[in-house]
Amino acid sequence: MSDFDYRKYKPFPPVPKADRRWPDQLIEKAPVWCSVDLRDGNQALIEPMTARQKSRLWDQLVKVGFKEIEVGFPSASSHDFDFVRELIENDRIPEDVTIQVLVQARKELIEKTFEALKGARRAVVHVYNSTSTVQREQVFGLDRQGIIDIAVNGAKLVQECAQRYPETEWIFEYSPESFTGTELDFAVAVCNAVTAVWQPTADKPVIINLPATVEMSTPNIYADQIEWFCDKVDNRDSLLISLHTHNDRGCAVAAAELGVMAGADRVEGTLMGNGERTGNMDVVTMAMNLYSQGVDPKLDLSNMDEIIQTVKECTQLPVHPRHPWAGELVFTAFSGSHQDAIKKCLSRREQENPWEVAYLPIDPADIGRSYQEVIRINSQSGKGGIAYVLERDYGYELPRWLQIDFSSAVQAYAEKSESEVGSEEIFSLFQNTYLNDEGRWQLGSYNVSREDHVDKLLAELSLGSTREKISGIGNGVVASFVDAMEKFTGKKIVLVEYNEHALSQSADAEAVCYIQLNVEGERYCGCGRSHDIVQASLDGILRAINKAEEQAQHAAA
Amino acid sequence: MSDFDYRKYKPFPPVPKADRRWPDQLIEKAPVWCSVDLRDGNQALIEPMTARQKSRLWDQLVKVGFKEIEVGFPSASSHDFDFVRELIENDRIPEDVTIQVLVQARKELIEKTFEALKGARRAVVHVYNSTSTVQREQVFGLDRQGIIDIAVNGAKLVQECAQRYPETEWIFEYSPESFTGTELDFAVAVCNAVTAVWQPTADKPVIINLPATVEMSTPNIYADQIEWFCDKVDNRDSLLISLHTHNDRGCAVAAAELGVMAGADRVEGTLMGNGERTGNMDVVTMAMNLYSQGVDPKLDLSNMDEIIQTVKECTQLPVHPRHPWAGELVFTAFSGSHQDAIKKCLSRREQENPWEVAYLPIDPADIGRSYQEVIRINSQSGKGGIAYVLERDYGYELPRWLQIDFSSAVQAYAEKSESEVGSEEIFSLFQNTYLNDEGRWQLGSYNVSREDHVDKLLAELSLGSTREKISGIGNGVVASFVDAMEKFTGKKIVLVEYNEHALSQSADAEAVCYIQLNVEGERYCGCGRSHDIVQASLDGILRAINKAEEQAQHAAA
Repeated sequence: MSDFDYRKYKPFPPVPKADRRWPDQLIEKAPVWCSVDLRDGNQALIEPMTARQKSRLWDQLVKVGFKEIEVGFPSASSHDFDFVRELIENDRIPEDVTIQVLVQARKELIEKTFEALKGARRAVVHVYNSTSTVQREQVFGLDRQGIIDIAVNGAKLVQECAQRYPETEWIFEYSPESFTGTELDFAVAVCNAVTAVWQPTADKPVIINLPATVEMSTPNIYADQIEWFCDKVDNRDSLLISLHTHNDRGCAVAAAELGVMAGADRVEGTLMGNGERTGNMDVVTMAMNLYSQGVDPKLDLSNMDEIIQTVKECTQLPVHPRHPWAGELVFTAFSGSHQDAIKKCLSRREQENPWEVAYLPIDPADIGRSYQEVIRINSQSGKGGIAYVLERDYGYELPRWLQIDFSSAVQAYAEKSESEVGSEEIFSLFQNTYLNDEGRWQLGSYNVSREDHVDKLLAELSLGSTREKISGIGNGVVASFVDAMEKFTGKKIVLVEYNEHALSQSADAEAVCYIQLNVEGERYCGCGRSHDIVQASLDGILRAINKAEEQAQHAAA
Repeated sequence: MSDFDYRKYKPFPPVPKADRRWPDQLIEKAPVWCSVDLRDGNQALIEPMTARQKSRLWDQLVKVGFKEIEVGFPSASSHDFDFVRELIENDRIPEDVTIQVLVQARKELIEKTFEALKGARRAVVHVYNSTSTVQREQVFGLDRQGIIDIAVNGAKLVQECAQRYPETEWIFEYSPESFTGTELDFAVAVCNAVTAVWQPTADKPVIINLPATVEMSTPNIYADQIEWFCDKVDNRDSLLISLHTHNDRGCAVAAAELGVMAGADRVEGTLMGNGERTGNMDVVTMAMNLYSQGVDPKLDLSNMDEIIQTVKECTQLPVHPRHPWAGELVFTAFSGSHQDAIKKCLSRREQENPWEVAYLPIDPADIGRSYQEVIRINSQSGKGGIAYVLERDYGYELPRWLQIDFSSAVQAYAEKSESEVGSEEIFSLFQNTYLNDEGRWQLGSYNVSREDHVDKLLAELSLGSTREKISGIGNGVVASFVDAMEKFTGKKIVLVEYNEHALSQSADAEAVCYIQLNVEGERYCGCGRSHDIVQASLDGILRAINKAEEQAQHAAA
């Protein structure tokens, strides 16, 4: 039998629930956030943070707006102990921010923890012990009562120690660690036993944190667990129910969201989801999910790039280019149809209306991202994106017929280069395709005279040292130039499309003119750019004709 | 007002549902998987895949066991066209694998698509058009009927073209693109109009794919949409309902899982979740989620590292170290309590029982990962992990009292080095701490004689060129050596702990002896290693005494 054998595993038992209510709930306000970056995040790094890195991350967490921040496990790590002291002694904790520390339900550790916190204005002491079946049986060799005794003993010790330091406002938190692997009735029993010691009230609640220490089920089952727990636990009104999910099944954010719908008040997580194994719940993703639904996230994520930079430097871990809301590619559309839809929605958007742009769930500018990255061009891209880039970066507003003509040139180029095509490359390709005079006829001096609604044009063409005089008549200068060129080339030329606009990005008001001609049954496009609209028009026509001539020579050769 | 303003956005409207059934469902079999790596994945790359990369990824997808693989958009890309031809003409499609191609509901594109597929044994033609409110109003400027007309027209063209190539077994798929942004009743109306053309039967069903082109809501609402759709659509028995989720809110896997619970039969996604913006649903995560619950995933992911390597090389994108089931850190425990629990569960595990190991949702060996990576040591680690590493890599089975003594040495070292501590470093630190003779008394020749249950020991100690003779008596050689050393040092020495074992990793059956002494009220540990158990014991005792002597000298200095 191969090692890859699903029969080694058993399904997670669902929660029998007849009165499920959470699927009808919507999240209409942000939960209380608690960052565990400096603890749960730090414990899972290949290289734990240095004091300098911890300090930097602390400042970032405060800046983002976390009001509760777990700063360490001071009884287990001298670094954490020192860091907590540093925050307190140097008065680095803002008035509205509460630090939190983790400790196991053991006497010597709890005492050391309170030493670390001495002088803090306010602190959450987060005590935990493992309650799951597998931990009880295989790790601790204890029955249910033995596990309850550890928890109750821890709760008592915490309470006793707290009384010794009355200058600090103490908040207690208890986690039945590995809650998702714990029988629900037992989880309730342990928590009831702990709160029986602490005697919380609605005015002075305690935090009961229900961790998915390992994510073990689909997120709806976690929500069922939370709702079941909230329904059955004693004294619900005196508890803040907290969630702490992990991402083993890739659903930590979903579990936290459904858990909040199921009744939780508070969510622990980290920036970008750093943490043990697959990581903790990513607070950035969940907060941005709320933001994108018109809910105040109660965190300021506007400077996303700074947040990313801090997290990367402190954790020494990368942020994936597809990381929700934050990765470098998450607002980028390469596909032609996507680009086209984005371009149309953006151009029709009215500021006062709610944001509604296809393929862009939020405005990238909200989090400091430029539109530069929204539309990027590769061989999968289409005319919309290309036109968008040319307009955005160079002010050229290509008419639709020219977008179509040019996109095939870009696609051929992109397929050949097998890579992304930058804005400069696109512009350079555009110039080579429509504005190129090299080795071709150029328009020299010209004279137009109008009489009886007929224009007569005399002009000089040059190609290297060769000069040719041409003349033509027509209604308007364009028509007379086309007439002159018909005579000169001996070919039937029809003007099919003509568009022009002032080049807004040009300081001295140049005009651009886009021309499509039918030359002997084939269509050719050209472009002219000049301070003078006549010059721009004639240049555009001549360049289209030059292309027709070249093609004819190729065909003949 | 800052740009970071949630008031620009409106909440996603929930689905009014009185008869919700999906939260009571469990996923008991794998959905039909369809890989869209070569299409949706490829369209979103900074550098689209080369022909060689596409070919390599194709081989990997077949090897993993996908039976449906979307291979491109041949009417929009000459590369895709050529790739489809290559697969067909070189007979690279296994009998049980069906290729799928994407095409918009437009005549010229559909005709070119069928050209690309000429000669295929069997193929899915996947036709789509955008149906969402925002696309109808802002991108296409069409009303509902206009959108239905595009879809019906596409369906007819596909059907007509298929009749021209009767040698191929055709399967039709329709996507109301941007389904999640489409009013549900309209999504049903469009799909009904398409299937009215195709006239599927239970024996010859068509695929209706319901994409979360952009993830717009919590995953439970997507499940509500799917269940609502399945309840209302015509001819449900003749349809295969397919899901295609994206990860904009970080919940693509959750949405697909809940969507399958809500009635879907089939799931489209990619390896490691590559795809537009935040990516498509990650098939690896969802399949491994099923696997870990004892459900046959119908894909072979045993060679995870090969899959990762292929994806990385073909997409030129990284796989995050915390990527569920696949990342390099996802089975790693750095934390002491986690390491301890893992160690205990693994040592008690019986092969025939279901897998149940704290903090390890599956056996890493299943997907070709070694236990090397499970327990890694940094300053956050504890005695369990350190002991595990020493036993795993060097065969030393440290007794618990020595684990405690040594872990403080490792932690101090790790805090100082501020980085992960490798297995070799731990062993080297162990040797320096307990097996080090440098500048210390060493045991030379010795003689033990036993008479009337009393042992008499004569021995020689050396330190550099200095030699000292010692002698002692006691019940047993250890006791007599302790007696001799008491006389030699003038200190009270009590043997507190003594453990020994044969060193299994030693080819010539060496023994290791672990000693803890109480020397004048302080405890000191030492270790001996020798082919002879007596030599190992005496060495261990002497090394513990040497440490006591050194400390006494330090204290005096």
